[in-house]
Amino acid sequence: MRVILPEIKELISSKKKRPIRKVVSYFEPADIAEIWSELTLDEQLILFNALDIKFAADIFESLKEDQMIEILNTVSVEKKKAVLNEMSPDDRTDLFAILPDEETEKLIPLLDEDEQKRTRELLAYKENTAGGLMTTDYITVPEDVKIGYVFRELRNKAKDIDFIQYIYVVDKMNRLQGTIPLKDLLTTNPQRKVSRIMDTHIISVHLNMDQEDVVHVFEKYDEPSLPVLDKLGRLKGVITVDDVLDVIKEEASEDIYRFGAAGGTDEYLSASPFRVAQKRVIWLIILALAGFISGSVLEHFSFLLSSIVTLSFFIPILMNTSGSAGTQAATVVVRGLATGEIKLSDIWHVIKKEFLIGILMGVVAGVITALRAIILQGDVMLGFTVAIAMIAAIIIATSLGGILPIIFKKLGVDPALMSGPLIATILDTTTLLIYFNVTMLLLWRLQ
Amino acid sequence: MRVILPEIKELISSKKKRPIRKVVSYFEPADIAEIWSELTLDEQLILFNALDIKFAADIFESLKEDQMIEILNTVSVEKKKAVLNEMSPDDRTDLFAILPDEETEKLIPLLDEDEQKRTRELLAYKENTAGGLMTTDYITVPEDVKIGYVFRELRNKAKDIDFIQYIYVVDKMNRLQGTIPLKDLLTTNPQRKVSRIMDTHIISVHLNMDQEDVVHVFEKYDEPSLPVLDKLGRLKGVITVDDVLDVIKEEASEDIYRFGAAGGTDEYLSASPFRVAQKRVIWLIILALAGFISGSVLEHFSFLLSSIVTLSFFIPILMNTSGSAGTQAATVVVRGLATGEIKLSDIWHVIKKEFLIGILMGVVAGVITALRAIILQGDVMLGFTVAIAMIAAIIIATSLGGILPIIFKKLGVDPALMSGPLIATILDTTTLLIYFNVTMLLLWRLQ
Repeated sequence: MRVILPEIKELISSKKKRPIRKVVSYFEPADIAEIWSELTLDEQLILFNALDIKFAADIFESLKEDQMIEILNTVSVEKKKAVLNEMSPDDRTDLFAILPDEETEKLIPLLDEDEQKRTRELLAYKENTAGGLMTTDYITVPEDVKIGYVFRELRNKAKDIDFIQYIYVVDKMNRLQGTIPLKDLLTTNPQRKVSRIMDTHIISVHLNMDQEDVVHVFEKYDEPSLPVLDKLGRLKGVITVDDVLDVIKEEASEDIYRFGAAGGTDEYLSASPFRVAQKRVIWLIILALAGFISGSVLEHFSFLLSSIVTLSFFIPILMNTSGSAGTQAATVVVRGLATGEIKLSDIWHVIKKEFLIGILMGVVAGVITALRAIILQGDVMLGFTVAIAMIAAIIIATSLGGILPIIFKKLGVDPALMSGPLIATILDTTTLLIYFNVTMLLLWRLQ
Repeated sequence: MRVILPEIKELISSKKKRPIRKVVSYFEPADIAEIWSELTLDEQLILFNALDIKFAADIFESLKEDQMIEILNTVSVEKKKAVLNEMSPDDRTDLFAILPDEETEKLIPLLDEDEQKRTRELLAYKENTAGGLMTTDYITVPEDVKIGYVFRELRNKAKDIDFIQYIYVVDKMNRLQGTIPLKDLLTTNPQRKVSRIMDTHIISVHLNMDQEDVVHVFEKYDEPSLPVLDKLGRLKGVITVDDVLDVIKEEASEDIYRFGAAGGTDEYLSASPFRVAQKRVIWLIILALAGFISGSVLEHFSFLLSSIVTLSFFIPILMNTSGSAGTQAATVVVRGLATGEIKLSDIWHVIKKEFLIGILMGVVAGVITALRAIILQGDVMLGFTVAIAMIAAIIIATSLGGILPIIFKKLGVDPALMSGPLIATILDTTTLLIYFNVTMLLLWRLQ
C-alpha cells in the first residue's frame, strides 16, 4: 500500500495516538521510513511516540543514520531505552559504530544487561569483517537434548528473531557441532535426539574474514545464512543474506567510485559541493601532475610539431583511442579481480590475451586514422605513420590496462585505484612517445 | 573441507562407485563444481554416474553453463531425465533459456508431466523480469483449512524445497490472501484456522517487474523471499534472496562494463581474443570517429598552434584534466541513478552542484597549470590564459558529466552507456574549443 503523505500529515496533526497507530500499522515500516524526511521533526516525534515500540523500532532501523541520530537526540530516555533494546543487535552495533565514543558510552547503559555485554563484544569487531556483519540473534541448543527441547526453545525465542533458517547445535564449549534446518524440525518426531538428525556438514565463515570474502562464500553456496566461528570453532554469531545484499551494493559502489577516480562513496545529494569537490580534487591534482609529463614530452618534440603542423591534428585521436582501449582492458580486469573470475595467477594469460586484442583493435583503429590522413590531408606517408603509431599505442594500451590492476593487487593495493582516468593519463605519455618516435623514424627524415 | 584434487582423481580412476559416493558426499556440491574443470570429461562422467541423483543434480546446478551442456550431451538418457527432474525449476529454466530451441524441445519431454507444464510457463517470462527469476517450488494452502493441514503439506513437500521461509495462503482463484512465517507455525495450535493467524500485510512483486526493481524491493524490505503476483493478484511464483544476489552482481558488472565502454559481460578468461576484441572494437570505432571532431578543431585552429608553439604543450593536460573531471561526475551520477539515490527529478540539483564543483576544482587545476606555464615557460600571460581555459573547461566537464547520464536515462537509454571514455571524448572537443577561443581572446591579439 502506498503512503499518502498529506493524509499522514493530517493524521499526525490530530495528535490522536490511537488512530495514528492504527492507520500507520497498515504500512510497512520501510515505507514509513521512506517518507520520514518529508515530515517535520515535530511530526516525527508525535508519530514515533504514538506507535507501539516494536513498530517504532522497525521504522527506526530503516532510517538513514543522520535521521536516527536526530531521533535519539530528541525522544525521552524511556523511549530511547525501549527502541535500542528492541533493535536487532547487528543494526544497533552499526549505529553505535558511527556515533562518537562518548555518545555510545552514554547509550550502552540503557540496554538490558546481557544486551550490553553482547553489544560491547560486537563493537570490538572490525566493521568490514564477518564479526562486524553478524548478529547475535539466533537459537542454539545443546547436542544431547531431544527435538522436543528445540520446540520449547523456539516457542520462547522465535518472537524476537526476524528470520530463522537453522537451529545451531553446540557442545559444552559452545563449539558448533551441527545445524538443523527449521523445515526439518516440522517433520521430526519430538522424541528423537538432536545429535541424530543434525546436519554435520557445516559451511561457516571465520570471525575475521573480510566482508568481500564473506560475500563470495554466500554466492558460492547459496545459503540464506551462515554461522560465524572463532579460531576454536566456537559459534560467535550468524550472518543473514540480507546483510550480504548491502555489502555487495556497497562494495560495487566503492569499486565504481574508485575506478572513476571519484573519491569516497558518501551521500552525493546531501553533501555540500565543497565536500564533494574536496574528495575529487585530490585525484584531479594527481592526474594533472601526471599529465604534465605528457606536456613535457610534447615540449621535447616541439621541433617536430613546428616543422610538420599536421602532426598535431592526430594527437587528440591517438591519445583518446589508446586511453579508451586501456580503460576497456582495465575495466574488465578490475571487475574480474573483484568478482574472483580473474586471479593473480592469471597474469600471463591476461597479458597474452590483451596483447592479441591490442593488435586486432590497433589494426582497425590504425586503418581508420590512416584513411582520415589520406582523405583529409592527402598524405599517404602521414597516414602510414599515424597507423603504425596507432597500432603500437593500442597494443601498449590494452596490455598496460590489463596488467596494471593485477600488479596493484599483487602489491596489496585495491586494483580499482588503477582508475580509468589514471590509465588514460599514463597512456597519454606512452602514446605521445610512440607517436613522435615513429614519426622520427618514418616521416621526419623524409621531409 | 577442502577438495584435494589428486586424491579425487585417484579415487575416480578406481571406478568404484561406492567409495566415490562416500568420499564425495563429505564435500559440498559447490566445492565439487569448483574443481570440475580440472577433471577430464571421462572423469566427470564416472563421478557423475557414481553419485546419487540428488547430489549429482546439486553439483550440476552449480556448474557453469558450458559445463552443464557438455554433461547433458554425454550422459545417458535416464541420467539426464533424473537430473533434469531433480533440478530446481528456476535453475532449470535458466539452462533451457540459453539452449537452442530445438535442444530445449528435446529435453522438456524428459520431465515429469507437471514439471513440463511449469517449465513451459516459466520459459515464457522474460529472463530479466520477476517472472524470469522466480521458482515454482513453494507451498500454498487454502484459506479455510487448519494449521494441522499445513503441517501435513509440509511433511509431504518440504523435502523437495531447499528453503522455506513462508507458507502462502491462497483463495480458490489462487489469489494470495496472506503469508505464514514458518517459525510461527511451530508455536501455533494445530486446531487454529490458517486465516486467523496469517499475516495479511503482503509485500509482493509483479510478474513483469524489471529485475533491477525487484532488487530494490528486496533491499528496501529486507525479506528473505517475495511472492510474485500477476495482474489479478494470483500467486505465480516466489523469488528467493539468493537469486537476487546473482542479479545484483550481474547488474553491477553490466554497469561497470558499459561505463568502461568494454562491451558485454561474457566470460573473459575463456573467451577468445577475437571475441573480446569484437565486443570492444565497436565502441573504440565510435570513440575514434568522435575523436576526429577534436582533430578537426585542432586543424581549424592550426594557425594559432603554428604561431605560438608553446600552446600545444598544454593540450594534453587540458584534455586530460577535463576528461577526468567529467568522468568523476559521470561516475557518481551513473552509480546514483543505478542505486536509486539520484532520481530524474534531481537534474537541476545535479547541474547546480556540478557547476559549483567545477568552479572549485577548476580554480585548483587552473592555478597548477598556470604555475607550470610561468615556471617552465616564464610566460605570465600564457599562464593566465591557460588557467582561464582550464577553469572554463572543467566547469563544462563536471556539468556535462553530471547531466548527460540523466539525459540518457530520460531518453530511456541506460545511463551507463554514457561511459567514461565517451565523456572524455566529448569533452576533448569542448575543451579544445574553449582553449583556442580563450587564447584568441586573451593571448593572440597581444602577440
